[in-house]
Amino acid sequence: MPPMDDPSLYDAYRRVRTFTEQLCEPLEIEDYMLQAAAEASPPKWHLAHVSWFFETFLLRPFLPGYAVFHAQFDHLFNSYYEQTEAGFWPRSKRGLISRPTVAEVYAYRRHVDDAMARLLSDCPTEHQATVRARVEIGLNHEQQHQELLLTDIKYNLAYNPLRPAYRSELSPLPLQDPVPLTFTAFEGGIHSFGAVDQGQTEPQAGRPAFAYDNEFPCHQRLLEPFRLADRLITNAEYQAFVDDGAYRNPALWLSDGWARIKTEGWQAPLYWEQLDGVWHETTLSGRRPLHPAEPVCHVSYFEAEAYARWAGRRLPTEFEWEHAAADRAVEGHFVDDGRLHPGPASTGSLQQLFGDCWEWTGSAYLPYPRYRAVDGALGEYNGKFMNGQMVLRGGSCATSRDHARLTYRNFFYPHERWQFKGIRLAEDLA
Amino acid sequence: MPPMDDPSLYDAYRRVRTFTEQLCEPLEIEDYMLQAAAEASPPKWHLAHVSWFFETFLLRPFLPGYAVFHAQFDHLFNSYYEQTEAGFWPRSKRGLISRPTVAEVYAYRRHVDDAMARLLSDCPTEHQATVRARVEIGLNHEQQHQELLLTDIKYNLAYNPLRPAYRSELSPLPLQDPVPLTFTAFEGGIHSFGAVDQGQTEPQAGRPAFAYDNEFPCHQRLLEPFRLADRLITNAEYQAFVDDGAYRNPALWLSDGWARIKTEGWQAPLYWEQLDGVWHETTLSGRRPLHPAEPVCHVSYFEAEAYARWAGRRLPTEFEWEHAAADRAVEGHFVDDGRLHPGPASTGSLQQLFGDCWEWTGSAYLPYPRYRAVDGALGEYNGKFMNGQMVLRGGSCATSRDHARLTYRNFFYPHERWQFKGIRLAEDLA
Amino acid sequence: MPPMDDPSLYDAYRRVRTFTEQLCEPLEIEDYMLQAAAEASPPKWHLAHVSWFFETFLLRPFLPGYAVFHAQFDHLFNSYYEQTEAGFWPRSKRGLISRPTVAEVYAYRRHVDDAMARLLSDCPTEHQATVRARVEIGLNHEQQHQELLLTDIKYNLAYNPLRPAYRSELSPLPLQDPVPLTFTAFEGGIHSFGAVDQGQTEPQAGRPAFAYDNEFPCHQRLLEPFRLADRLITNAEYQAFVDDGAYRNPALWLSDGWARIKTEGWQAPLYWEQLDGVWHETTLSGRRPLHPAEPVCHVSYFEAEAYARWAGRRLPTEFEWEHAAADRAVEGHFVDDGRLHPGPASTGSLQQLFGDCWEWTGSAYLPYPRYRAVDGALGEYNGKFMNGQMVLRGGSCATSRDHARLTYRNFFYPHERWQFKGIRLAEDLA
Amino acid sequence: MPPMDDPSLYDAYRRVRTFTEQLCEPLEIEDYMLQAAAEASPPKWHLAHVSWFFETFLLRPFLPGYAVFHAQFDHLFNSYYEQTEAGFWPRSKRGLISRPTVAEVYAYRRHVDDAMARLLSDCPTEHQATVRARVEIGLNHEQQHQELLLTDIKYNLAYNPLRPAYRSELSPLPLQDPVPLTFTAFEGGIHSFGAVDQGQTEPQAGRPAFAYDNEFPCHQRLLEPFRLADRLITNAEYQAFVDDGAYRNPALWLSDGWARIKTEGWQAPLYWEQLDGVWHETTLSGRRPLHPAEPVCHVSYFEAEAYARWAGRRLPTEFEWEHAAADRAVEGHFVDDGRLHPGPASTGSLQQLFGDCWEWTGSAYLPYPRYRAVDGALGEYNGKFMNGQMVLRGGSCATSRDHARLTYRNFFYPHERWQFKGIRLAEDLA
Repeated sequence: MPPMDDPSLYDAYRRVRTFTEQLCEPLEIEDYMLQAAAEASPPKWHLAHVSWFFETFLLRPFLPGYAVFHAQFDHLFNSYYEQTEAGFWPRSKRGLISRPTVAEVYAYRRHVDDAMARLLSDCPTEHQATVRARVEIGLNHEQQHQELLLTDIKYNLAYNPLRPAYRSELSPLPLQDPVPLTFTAFEGGIHSFGAVDQGQTEPQAGRPAFAYDNEFPCHQRLLEPFRLADRLITNAEYQAFVDDGAYRNPALWLSDGWARIKTEGWQAPLYWEQLDGVWHETTLSGRRPLHPAEPVCHVSYFEAEAYARWAGRRLPTEFEWEHAAADRAVEGHFVDDGRLHPGPASTGSLQQLFGDCWEWTGSAYLPYPRYRAVDGALGEYNGKFMNGQMVLRGGSCATSRDHARLTYRNFFYPHERWQFKGIRLAEDLA
Repeated sequence: MPPMDDPSLYDAYRRVRTFTEQLCEPLEIEDYMLQAAAEASPPKWHLAHVSWFFETFLLRPFLPGYAVFHAQFDHLFNSYYEQTEAGFWPRSKRGLISRPTVAEVYAYRRHVDDAMARLLSDCPTEHQATVRARVEIGLNHEQQHQELLLTDIKYNLAYNPLRPAYRSELSPLPLQDPVPLTFTAFEGGIHSFGAVDQGQTEPQAGRPAFAYDNEFPCHQRLLEPFRLADRLITNAEYQAFVDDGAYRNPALWLSDGWARIKTEGWQAPLYWEQLDGVWHETTLSGRRPLHPAEPVCHVSYFEAEAYARWAGRRLPTEFEWEHAAADRAVEGHFVDDGRLHPGPASTGSLQQLFGDCWEWTGSAYLPYPRYRAVDGALGEYNGKFMNGQMVLRGGSCATSRDHARLTYRNFFYPHERWQFKGIRLAEDLA
Repeated sequence: MPPMDDPSLYDAYRRVRTFTEQLCEPLEIEDYMLQAAAEASPPKWHLAHVSWFFETFLLRPFLPGYAVFHAQFDHLFNSYYEQTEAGFWPRSKRGLISRPTVAEVYAYRRHVDDAMARLLSDCPTEHQATVRARVEIGLNHEQQHQELLLTDIKYNLAYNPLRPAYRSELSPLPLQDPVPLTFTAFEGGIHSFGAVDQGQTEPQAGRPAFAYDNEFPCHQRLLEPFRLADRLITNAEYQAFVDDGAYRNPALWLSDGWARIKTEGWQAPLYWEQLDGVWHETTLSGRRPLHPAEPVCHVSYFEAEAYARWAGRRLPTEFEWEHAAADRAVEGHFVDDGRLHPGPASTGSLQQLFGDCWEWTGSAYLPYPRYRAVDGALGEYNGKFMNGQMVLRGGSCATSRDHARLTYRNFFYPHERWQFKGIRLAEDLA
Repeated sequence: MPPMDDPSLYDAYRRVRTFTEQLCEPLEIEDYMLQAAAEASPPKWHLAHVSWFFETFLLRPFLPGYAVFHAQFDHLFNSYYEQTEAGFWPRSKRGLISRPTVAEVYAYRRHVDDAMARLLSDCPTEHQATVRARVEIGLNHEQQHQELLLTDIKYNLAYNPLRPAYRSELSPLPLQDPVPLTFTAFEGGIHSFGAVDQGQTEPQAGRPAFAYDNEFPCHQRLLEPFRLADRLITNAEYQAFVDDGAYRNPALWLSDGWARIKTEGWQAPLYWEQLDGVWHETTLSGRRPLHPAEPVCHVSYFEAEAYARWAGRRLPTEFEWEHAAADRAVEGHFVDDGRLHPGPASTGSLQQLFGDCWEWTGSAYLPYPRYRAVDGALGEYNGKFMNGQMVLRGGSCATSRDHARLTYRNFFYPHERWQFKGIRLAEDLA
């Protein structure tokens, strides 16, 4: 294990923390307050919550003499950890708190950063392993919130009938047709899945390899032969599904999905709207006509699953996806590229596995065999959500490149659409 | 009628418009976004809506060549006028709009103010009477929103568990005991009520006397002899009601009030909370212990009516109140005084009729005999609310002194508590 | 006061109690269980509740040695009396109780009837006045529930898409045109309203005159001159309002009414539906085409008020109604006539004041000056509902003739439609 | 394939149909109307719906000249099939339909039974295979509704504060202590799961072996070594969990489960209540003290999963269960035994796998690899529910013995408790 004064960990800390703030640069103060749905938290809350995470799980327990920035922030900026003392402010009410102001939240970040610098430069030996592990979790946690920050900003700005842009200087691609949809075949058989033990992995880019508890343990599964689509489903393909009346045909949908269509009045993916007969999409750079070759995104599991049924195919399992993606490079459009929208596929074989859009799988989010959650409040991070959600794989255009990895398991409820979620098809092989 | 270039109307316009902005001076940008309940609109919305009112009812119809500031503001900042074309953004979602920014809303105000200056300085003769009448409505409308601005700010800040103060420099009164509760007797008989026709009234303080359509016509009613309390009920008196278990005793309450207690969990007036066994109240200058001699405020009609029953008395009708207040000076604590909270009564006869707290009456808000609403969308101002609400009289510490008047009829639903509403008792005289 | 062994009171008791059961004769056992809306209680519940009323307010306190039929009926069949010990089963869940069975409920009635016979034949002198007064209330209470029984049966059967008839043998009137709408003028001035003290009134038809506490005390009011329509508004007239697009025009409606139209999807009165372009109405004898000359019924206050506005008139106040109806005979279609639907007016002067349809007035349901509720739980009968409701006058085709009277004040929330409620217009007289 | 005039199929039809009606014998007419929750349909509806199933999928398409009993029953008694023409009456409103009466529903059953007799005795050769397959589905469907009939009756009667018994003559077991909890080990490895193709299976008890489409196809999975509890968790064991404060400790629960505890106020399994400090349970034969050795039942997945966590174990997957149960006889308490409640385990090895209680597994209800739903509306039977639900295995004391089978996959949402659902533990083997 590298010594605690290894600058790489603190460098990573600085890099991640700084990037969070860079993502907020285009925002007006007013934007920091928005919460147009319970799950789309205000930017201000994200900025504070990720700092609370370091304060709660690192500074309070391990930095001697640490003075909290504000006694009530423990209540205001806890997300959902039931095993901490202060309880938490209701999720759906995060947008109703004007104080601390944005400036005060940035001051809170500085306070935490300064204390973290002290902790990382002078940590008692007996805590170093725990501190290092928790810093890794904290940084991955903040990277997750960077993605949420962008998708929440997208949701909250798009809610406004003026459809303001987050970054209006981004220019759209010239229109082009999608490349043909082809498939790659896989053999089946017994294969390994999940992350191998952290202690045994090599550092990458100055940081040790990391995986969440829900990616462990590495274990074996039996796969049947299958074929996987070489690219994501495009807007043009999905529009054909819409134009075919899919949202009015119950035979295509899971029962819960059909109920959702009726109660929510869905007629197309989130952010699609028809203007003068032309489908448009609101993006982080404003509203524009659908690009036919870009991947469809912001679809629910219900829509992905119904599309697959309509197309005579199915969604892959998370294990088929992981098997197909093994040994592939982590390539694609990530948040680092600044495009902030998925890009079209090029001609050729299996691609877009990483970045661009999270890919709905047909696998429910459940524990791997012999899964053990971390002890204490941190054990609430992943384990308590293993019910009712579906696994997504691969990352999106709002994910950091160094946050994506082969074994990463993202999870959302089947009706949720506000992340960059797309569709990759699979089919059985005789 | 004074000529249109009479500077007094424009002076009044400037004075009212400026005061709105003065009220916002203590706010942070973040505070302008708050809407913690559907009825507690964000300050930003108020600032824009009152400008929309002038734009819609004066500039668009009467200022030749007027260019609207933004085409979609007609939709965003209409409150509830169904008879305008653009419809309106849902009331409960006003806090979910970050753009226009606060700065842009102030620019909108400048745009409207400049245009109003042009209109008032150069109005075609045939429109002068209408313009003058509508400016009066617009200014009274803005004064009403000044009061709402304060009560909404109070609600929205108090919702925050940090209980931030709007103006922390206001110092509370030294504690003192209430003066004894005495009553003044009135004879009964046939009396006149309501406003006399505008055309026949004298200008006051440079502005013609004004009354809303719901105060007309002046008409006669038969009153029975009654006695009216000389002052408002105090916090100390109301606390005795609370301490007597009133909120757990259904025999004291109207059926709808008891249902409300159970669904909302009411245990005391809005803004009261017990800390270490002592009742505190959150005010616009922060949380502090109850002042025993200050009038109880932020009570619902249900609470006022139940208190009166518990005290063996009743609430006055709006006609008893108006009869008792006739020929009394418009004196009391108003927003002009900067106290922003009702003040205690002094020893002596009938007082606190104006200012301090709106006083719940036992009268339902219904049209006077021969009432006629104004034509067109402006007719929606008062008339369409004549159902299910109760009349309050007298004004409050958040009302402008020159907005209060004898015949003024305020109205709210019986469960609403976020205005400065208090209790004055009455009783029958044998 | 007649002696307690005067058979007339027991005769009245027998007559009223028997009539309740006669109204249930057309029902199937299954119908006794229906509750398609919280306010439309199952017949079985009505049968038991009116018996509980006698048990609670007469047998338990005044019949020595009375044994209750079932210990838990006090909980199951209390309607809303908060001041009794057992609390009450939630109103909206009354249809979810299959036991006691219908047969057991009839046995309960027999048990109560037998005990009442004992009480009335042998009541200690000191209780006779109270017992007699409470029996009167109990009988009037049961008559009110007879009306609710019919209107609830109507609602609950009409909810079924098969539209089963309660009594299919009733034959509709031959179609005819309405008589012209004329008005009768009244002078105005000071008049008396409300019931005169019971002790001073003559017995009628063997029963002393009766009035609820909310009809007291008799007091004076000042009326302005007005004209009152000679008959109720007809289906043909109301259909013209519907055909004119009234349900799509917000300018015609009170704000709360327009909100109700949108949330409930109202397009016409309750029970109206269009079949092949023809408006039909579901009645207690099944669905049939609208009769043009019959009074429109099952309208809300919102609809009555909007109709009046559309027609350039207004609704009368309850005092105008009472003044016009004073000295008129209690004539009209009552439940005694077995028609179970309002009938058309004939040519001529002021009619349909009693029976046919309850008439919405423009008066809020509030206490009369010097009103005092009865002491104890019985005081909850009327007083605690004096908020948010509007007064209706006159009775309906589902009211008993000997239950209707000049001073009777019925009250419902402005959105409620399931009673036989109609429209009578008024207008100001210069 | 046996000829269509083989009497065994019709015998099975008669047997299943008759048993449905036998289950209703203890009911009062009023009980047939009860629906105390959307998912607990009235007995009358079940009786009609299962007949509608035969009418819709067999009589209408295959019996020439078949006349439907009532044109609107297609709407009233469809459950959820979106691909039929008439749509369906809302599930939550099934208890609001008094007509057809119970007697008419029985007449409907006779009508369908007579027509089915004709169809089965004289079916054109080309339809025989389809008819036979659909009759099998129809009978299994009716057996499923027999179980629902009982569990819905239990729910609907227990909702009544009188806690009426369905069959009060059933006597409880003498109290006894549970046998110790032991486990049986299994090796792991590749095994087959699911039903083998129907065409290849032998008839059992006069009926061909049957399985639903969701049990197909037979396929292989890799299991890791595990141990399975030899019996279900008992009331005594579960009470220790309750007494340990489990319902107040969020650390034990899935996030959605903890949310459910708070919104529903759960403090114990459904039907448990404390009387004078002693836990009681309402059963189909009324309320009685908990029997310590009987299996805990009416627990949600959330409760089963939390119990397992508290006990340091986990739930088995549906594949572990199926592997352990393979080659075991279908033994246990079934509805045929008339006990109507799960019974205690005896000393010894693996038992209670079938009957007694459905056993929650840790497997989400998802399609098997290469699953294909049946074509047309019948394909809605199972496939459209493959989302958000968990698999239960083994059958219960309300299941018919000849309906239970090794590969049967029952499924419910994780919060649902009104079936007889219990807990069997598993654990990993090193």
